Amino acid sequence: MNDFVFCSPTKFVFGRGYVDRTGAELAGAGFKRVLVVFGQGSVVRSGLLERVEQSLVDAGLSFVECGGVRPNPEVEWVRAAIEKARAEGVDGVLAVGGGSVIDAAKATAFGVPYAGDVWDFFAKKATVGECLPIAAVLTIPAAGSEASSSCVLSNDAENRKVGTNGDVFRPRVAIMDPEVTFTLPAYQTAAGVTDMIAHICERYFSAVGEVPVTDNLACGIIRALMEMAPRALADPEDYEARANIMWAGTLAHNDLCGCGRSTNPTARAGGWESHALEHELSAHYPQVAHGAGLAVILPAWMRYVWRTNPERFLSFADDVFGIEPVDDDFEPREEAVADAVEAAIDELQMFFVGMGMPRVLGDFGVGPDCIDELLATLEKTKGSEFGQFRKLTMDDARAIYESAF
Amino acid sequence: MNDFVFCSPTKFVFGRGYVDRTGAELAGAGFKRVLVVFGQGSVVRSGLLERVEQSLVDAGLSFVECGGVRPNPEVEWVRAAIEKARAEGVDGVLAVGGGSVIDAAKATAFGVPYAGDVWDFFAKKATVGECLPIAAVLTIPAAGSEASSSCVLSNDAENRKVGTNGDVFRPRVAIMDPEVTFTLPAYQTAAGVTDMIAHICERYFSAVGEVPVTDNLACGIIRALMEMAPRALADPEDYEARANIMWAGTLAHNDLCGCGRSTNPTARAGGWESHALEHELSAHYPQVAHGAGLAVILPAWMRYVWRTNPERFLSFADDVFGIEPVDDDFEPREEAVADAVEAAIDELQMFFVGMGMPRVLGDFGVGPDCIDELLATLEKTKGSEFGQFRKLTMDDARAIYESAF
Repeated sequence: MNDFVFCSPTKFVFGRGYVDRTGAELAGAGFKRVLVVFGQGSVVRSGLLERVEQSLVDAGLSFVECGGVRPNPEVEWVRAAIEKARAEGVDGVLAVGGGSVIDAAKATAFGVPYAGDVWDFFAKKATVGECLPIAAVLTIPAAGSEASSSCVLSNDAENRKVGTNGDVFRPRVAIMDPEVTFTLPAYQTAAGVTDMIAHICERYFSAVGEVPVTDNLACGIIRALMEMAPRALADPEDYEARANIMWAGTLAHNDLCGCGRSTNPTARAGGWESHALEHELSAHYPQVAHGAGLAVILPAWMRYVWRTNPERFLSFADDVFGIEPVDDDFEPREEAVADAVEAAIDELQMFFVGMGMPRVLGDFGVGPDCIDELLATLEKTKGSEFGQFRKLTMDDARAIYESAF
Repeated sequence: MNDFVFCSPTKFVFGRGYVDRTGAELAGAGFKRVLVVFGQGSVVRSGLLERVEQSLVDAGLSFVECGGVRPNPEVEWVRAAIEKARAEGVDGVLAVGGGSVIDAAKATAFGVPYAGDVWDFFAKKATVGECLPIAAVLTIPAAGSEASSSCVLSNDAENRKVGTNGDVFRPRVAIMDPEVTFTLPAYQTAAGVTDMIAHICERYFSAVGEVPVTDNLACGIIRALMEMAPRALADPEDYEARANIMWAGTLAHNDLCGCGRSTNPTARAGGWESHALEHELSAHYPQVAHGAGLAVILPAWMRYVWRTNPERFLSFADDVFGIEPVDDDFEPREEAVADAVEAAIDELQMFFVGMGMPRVLGDFGVGPDCIDELLATLEKTKGSEFGQFRKLTMDDARAIYESAF
């Protein structure tokens, strides 16, 4: 168990109809004038934004709207939002949406007190220090941004999608009302669950061996997701399923599943190999939803790297799927191990595909000729080598992309 | 999944040698002049207190010592500490010890800004509002007080032991260095692990049915404890075992294992029946260590109540012990269920006994004639009926105590 620093200070306000508590919670947390960040209109059409804003008014808060965040939020939007936040003198930022909206809100919140360009934080030219307080009304359980220290932005001009991390921009309050996810389309529900499982796997397969407490939490959350996701897909208004998925998404990414698994106590656990490989895809091809991209990349990565530490994959196979190597005289141990690990990866991929996720990259309408440009920007972001479970060169990355076609 | 509000804001600073970081962490959290609370001298003899105080000095903090907290801390000690804290003008309280020391520190921290008597909070005559900031250097993993909203005090004059809860007195910082637990005697190690498992069970067996995410976390932590405790008892310097136990103790009681399981969103999940029954024991008989008392009471309570909801106990039996009811034509389902549940409770009790914990109350040197006085103070604290999984009258409580002899 490696040393760690863990602080997940977000107040989670979780339950039926809790959207209407937003104003009271923000007032309690000291917000007074709020920048309300949202996406491309679904929260307007559903009436959710109106409910949130009414609760702000009821609690005596004032607010300014700042909508139009797109999936894979872009730095130009954030720059404009920062200007607006400064001009309007807001003292806090409230995201009403999913991971893209929350990430855009986070970048705005730490961009406001910074004199330079906000992209500096993503280009690793600056480290986030000050930050306006952030709150979120979560509408899409997936990215875990409502509690995480992560923020991912795209930069269209540079064809890049890059993340930055900092405890200072974990939200103060997360309003989590599973009923608002009843209308979430099946594809987005499935992509969200895939993203959650990937967040756990990125930490589970770090460079650190077993940490029983953390590993049991990790696998327990994955098992709950695999039990609940089919229920939510079969009946979108199954509250229990929606609620368990929503809470699982938070715990998958608030770093609870990384405690003791990091090689640097103050940094996130894991090498985030699949996320790095996927980010290039959705940066270049906006039709690739992040979770859907991961449904293809994560199993491809697993098949490529598991031989680096078969025991770790055997633990995963056993804890998540109850798959153990056959122990008999007819099959050599090495083959039994390979069979068990491959069976577990197959099960995971079948689970993704069974939810309606793609199996291969060709399902997105892209061909293998895209790999060169993916690698060019990947190398710009990650350097010539990256990863923890197994160090990956650009040749390794190419092989993984190729295997995903 | 019931509605819940969950906020565990403590910063956990966890690792080898991290005791020496105490001063820097407290300075970072805004502490300046600190009341250092400790117990009956073991931290003095081990040199731990000196290391902590040196780190305070190195970080530019001043401090005042306030030692002598006994196991099952007493309100008179707290009253004196409050006077000292006021006279010395401290702005924060640092506990160096286990649950008793941390609880005494908490009561001091919320007693200082209160004009009345601190026992008012335990007698339910007042609710904690203001509180000095609290930090803890944990030396005994057990009570989970380093992150919990709980505080339990004894009142010798009234022969009572009572708890109070409030998010406002969750510690800001918890310094967790598993190496300091290498010297913890086997009995205390075992009692601590028992207490952790009881904290999880009190929440698991609330009035609320299954919550897959939370239930999987709960059972996963128990399984990790059952794997690690024998290792720590066999080799007290097994760092992995000590570290996993320490972290499990925190997660067992910071309310993570209660999310969605509470009948009141802002209150702790569970009926805390075993704790209520045990608190009377250790209030009357100081020779009863809290965890050791629970090792007897928890299984006795389980045997008495499981028929109220056998399915819940079957989930526990399966998830923790892999015990399922035999499904064949020879045994009626009802008997198979009873066998499975009783087998799981047996396994749990055997685990406690295997760690060196007592099996029956007679092991503490008390006789059944004590029950009347236990019930008298129990009724004063809990009223004539208490509990959630099954409502318990004083007759039920008597029957459980009797069954534990």
